[in-house]
Amino acid sequence: MEEECLVQVEENKQVIFRGFIEGTPKETDLQVVVGKKIELKAPPKGSGAFLVKNLYLSCDPYMRGRMRDFHDSYLPPFLPGQAGFGVSKVVDSDNPNFKPGDFISGITGWEEYSLIRTTELSRKIKPNDLPLSYHVGLLGMPGFTAYAGFYEVCSPKKGESVLVSAASGAVGQLVGQLAKLHGCYVVGSCGSSRKVDLLRNKLGFDEAFNYKEEPDLGAALKRYFPQGIDIYFDNVGGDMLDAALVNMKIHGRIAVCGMVSEKNLSDPQGIRNVYNLITKRIRMQGFLQSDYIHLFPRFLEHVISYYEQGKIVYIEDMNEGLESAPSAFVGLFLGENVGKQVIRVAHE
Amino acid sequence: MEEECLVQVEENKQVIFRGFIEGTPKETDLQVVVGKKIELKAPPKGSGAFLVKNLYLSCDPYMRGRMRDFHDSYLPPFLPGQAGFGVSKVVDSDNPNFKPGDFISGITGWEEYSLIRTTELSRKIKPNDLPLSYHVGLLGMPGFTAYAGFYEVCSPKKGESVLVSAASGAVGQLVGQLAKLHGCYVVGSCGSSRKVDLLRNKLGFDEAFNYKEEPDLGAALKRYFPQGIDIYFDNVGGDMLDAALVNMKIHGRIAVCGMVSEKNLSDPQGIRNVYNLITKRIRMQGFLQSDYIHLFPRFLEHVISYYEQGKIVYIEDMNEGLESAPSAFVGLFLGENVGKQVIRVAHE
Repeated sequence: MEEECLVQVEENKQVIFRGFIEGTPKETDLQVVVGKKIELKAPPKGSGAFLVKNLYLSCDPYMRGRMRDFHDSYLPPFLPGQAGFGVSKVVDSDNPNFKPGDFISGITGWEEYSLIRTTELSRKIKPNDLPLSYHVGLLGMPGFTAYAGFYEVCSPKKGESVLVSAASGAVGQLVGQLAKLHGCYVVGSCGSSRKVDLLRNKLGFDEAFNYKEEPDLGAALKRYFPQGIDIYFDNVGGDMLDAALVNMKIHGRIAVCGMVSEKNLSDPQGIRNVYNLITKRIRMQGFLQSDYIHLFPRFLEHVISYYEQGKIVYIEDMNEGLESAPSAFVGLFLGENVGKQVIRVAHE
Repeated sequence: MEEECLVQVEENKQVIFRGFIEGTPKETDLQVVVGKKIELKAPPKGSGAFLVKNLYLSCDPYMRGRMRDFHDSYLPPFLPGQAGFGVSKVVDSDNPNFKPGDFISGITGWEEYSLIRTTELSRKIKPNDLPLSYHVGLLGMPGFTAYAGFYEVCSPKKGESVLVSAASGAVGQLVGQLAKLHGCYVVGSCGSSRKVDLLRNKLGFDEAFNYKEEPDLGAALKRYFPQGIDIYFDNVGGDMLDAALVNMKIHGRIAVCGMVSEKNLSDPQGIRNVYNLITKRIRMQGFLQSDYIHLFPRFLEHVISYYEQGKIVYIEDMNEGLESAPSAFVGLFLGENVGKQVIRVAHE
């Protein structure tokens, strides 16, 4: 009874998106605000809401799409202060499904404490031996994007040749590893020699190259795929998509997952080689992981099992503290992150 | 016995493709040659070849692809004098499957008489009440392209909204009619008011418009598809494809069948709105009818039945005489043909 009266009040540091932006995000487009207070208490009975302490926040390219006035986006724009996926610990709850002490993953705010009112997207984390932060990466939306995209969109067959762009990123690194486990030949493109090294030596890709060092992307792909590409898992769009189109095999498949290279352009560059869709009978398909959500339990089971057997690894780029959020987010678009970009808000 | 000695010799008028060309084809890229003689006799026993009198020749946009040095085309370049599909009558034969008097459809030359040595693509025409010339149109490659593309690539459902470009052409007119029979709402784009009239009043499209009169194609599509497009059967590429991409519904499908608008450009225009593939989860797929050739007998059965029941019609643009071939071919790229472009070489 006493606890109900003695409500703890904490300072709640927040990251504010300052509104719609144009061009490449800059650190000044985000602001860390301190001093705001929050009562560590769920709303009155019947609300179904709960209060969480945020532990890990996910930095994802798709968030850029919510920072501009893009009426056709599949996501509504951010209201200032809102944000994306995170891993949190329940502090107080009016919801019988989420009890204090539970770890959850789902939509939260870029702040130390968040009040979760819309609980449909919150998922209680079943304990396992994997790091909690993996629930915004390997075991979260990026991992599931890789899983659904590779198996459901790419229609892979053993022995096929697979190109993955942004290959060391949150999605790409799992796509490549799943493709290897499927018996494919896998080449990754990325933006630094350090990433090339990771892809070759830690993530088990057959080959990897730094696209920034290739004056002719088409020639680079021809070198790595002299017989052509069966599957291109496209995380970037732009020039790499154009170069892949001319290097696809007949009946190739392109999963269009992300277009980081075009996110910053209000006048996106045209894809010039679409004609190849006809001559090579290519299927090019956009997708969102949410369309395959019925496969999520199977995904978790498979990927946890692969991880526990040592068949896959996962690389995170961990940033310490909410103060690191602006540079971590901006770094995504400069290709600075190595692996899944995560912000640690608090230790478990 | 006497006939074997008295071999008839005829003048064999021919259309010569003068070699690789750039830009829009001109009438002078083709030449009608007279005076060459041919013996109306099949080669010696054992050759399996046969000699035909050509009745109808098909004029198709894909032929443009064989008139340039395009190493990635799905078809080898034309040798001068070679050409495409036609309907012919066998005059003399060393092949037991093709007897004098048989009507056949298949690859032939743009000339009055052709010696057919490669017979794999020759198909004996079973007699029916439809015009013989339909075997290069409704019942031939264009008709089958429409059939395979609509049913196998577009995954149509009753009640869906369908856009067809080059809608009065050899392929488009059947796509639209099949879509109507499937219970879809169908809009056709074309390049003249005469074609608009045909689409609305003869081919049964729900709506049709002349793209040349639309300063903003995106706005035009928004007008005809306020709720968006489920299926775009793309025969043209270019600006119409870009405009369709932004007007597609979620989970829409685009069958990429032809890109007449880009065939003449050595530097094809880029498609700027590919980003929509992700936000709308669109499947965009190129195809060739030849990949579905196992469905050809079913296609013939269905389409002949529809035609005989008066459920579909087919419009031909008939050009008289081999002399009309250069202007008929060039007219394809100027949008001058109304319906399937055919050259009548001789009367049956």
